[in-house]
Amino acid sequence: MKRVKMLILLARRDAIGERVKITMRELADELGISPQSVLRLLDEMEGDGLIERFVEGKKTYVEITPKGLAFLEDLCDAISEVLYNGVIIGEVISGIGEGAYYVRQYSHLIKEYLGFEPYPGTLNVKVIFPKTVFDALCNVRPVILPGFVREGRTFGDVKAYRVRIGNVEGAIVIPSRTVHPPKIAEIVAPVYLRKELGLRDGSKITIRVVKE
Amino acid sequence: MKRVKMLILLARRDAIGERVKITMRELADELGISPQSVLRLLDEMEGDGLIERFVEGKKTYVEITPKGLAFLEDLCDAISEVLYNGVIIGEVISGIGEGAYYVRQYSHLIKEYLGFEPYPGTLNVKVIFPKTVFDALCNVRPVILPGFVREGRTFGDVKAYRVRIGNVEGAIVIPSRTVHPPKIAEIVAPVYLRKELGLRDGSKITIRVVKE
Repeated sequence: MKRVKMLILLARRDAIGERVKITMRELADELGISPQSVLRLLDEMEGDGLIERFVEGKKTYVEITPKGLAFLEDLCDAISEVLYNGVIIGEVISGIGEGAYYVRQYSHLIKEYLGFEPYPGTLNVKVIFPKTVFDALCNVRPVILPGFVREGRTFGDVKAYRVRIGNVEGAIVIPSRTVHPPKIAEIVAPVYLRKELGLRDGSKITIRVVKE
Repeated sequence: MKRVKMLILLARRDAIGERVKITMRELADELGISPQSVLRLLDEMEGDGLIERFVEGKKTYVEITPKGLAFLEDLCDAISEVLYNGVIIGEVISGIGEGAYYVRQYSHLIKEYLGFEPYPGTLNVKVIFPKTVFDALCNVRPVILPGFVREGRTFGDVKAYRVRIGNVEGAIVIPSRTVHPPKIAEIVAPVYLRKELGLRDGSKITIRVVKE
């Protein structure tokens, strides 16, 4: 991790595409290691082609090499790939009872577009991982439940993402207008999920996004 | 890095939101360390709350904890934040001469929307970092040069991103229809960049995206 931390630190100091002045003392303080260790670490990293050093008199300048940048990019790509793979971990919470009303309004569309008669209520899940529901859903194409007007009231488009919880299939439903990633996932399903899966407030559940 | 590698390895084996069976031998082979080292590493990681182990008879199961997942997420976020900060590193290459034609066609729009009379030609830069131009531009709002029809020919919308190379301001121009992230950045500027900055094929340059 020391190399990764050092690269992040140097990048934060703008050592991408240009040389920046460094002092062993400052880097040591920021990394919580000795100046001697910083020097050794920089030696190793330069030896491996991750950084380049330029000495002018008593001043030292550093720039991250393309190889060093690729190292960080590859690491970040590898992490994203395994993390944001359609798994959501959350904790069951109580909704404010609005879910049932909306499920009834969209019931015909859920039947038509998702293929099941929804239980009149939603399971509310506080998302623990990933940081936002959107992170888990960014690579999945939603089913759009088209908005409509009923008795003078407008009901907007809803994005539905098919998911599986244990053996039950359902869908996470998110109003299309939502800009801020929800921290609560609302789930519709053909059954009463709390009963079917023996859930209560505080139960931890794993939701798997179903990719077509 | 051993912890990060181990977490990525476990995540790849689906240890997110569920317990997966592991053997020291397999993990040791994949990480290139001894089974004893794997055991020690898992001990430490469990002690730090990054993973949980479950032993059933002779079988061992592992699950990454929410803390372990947050550790990976935070690392990836920290890397993205410093990496994709509007810096592009590239190498000057020769274009196929089409640039000049298009710059002439869009010249009036460049003047109107970007505020300068463009030199009739583009500087073509093969992008070395980040992997794609889009990675560097994803957090920046482009200036849209609206498409038009001239003499029966359609010219599409073009996205322009203001950039600085050394002391010269210009813009990266990308046809809006482009879906695949370009590996070549085309730059327009009020001056002949090759002459102004003493560039030739193969010159390394650093392009900084100007954020409004």
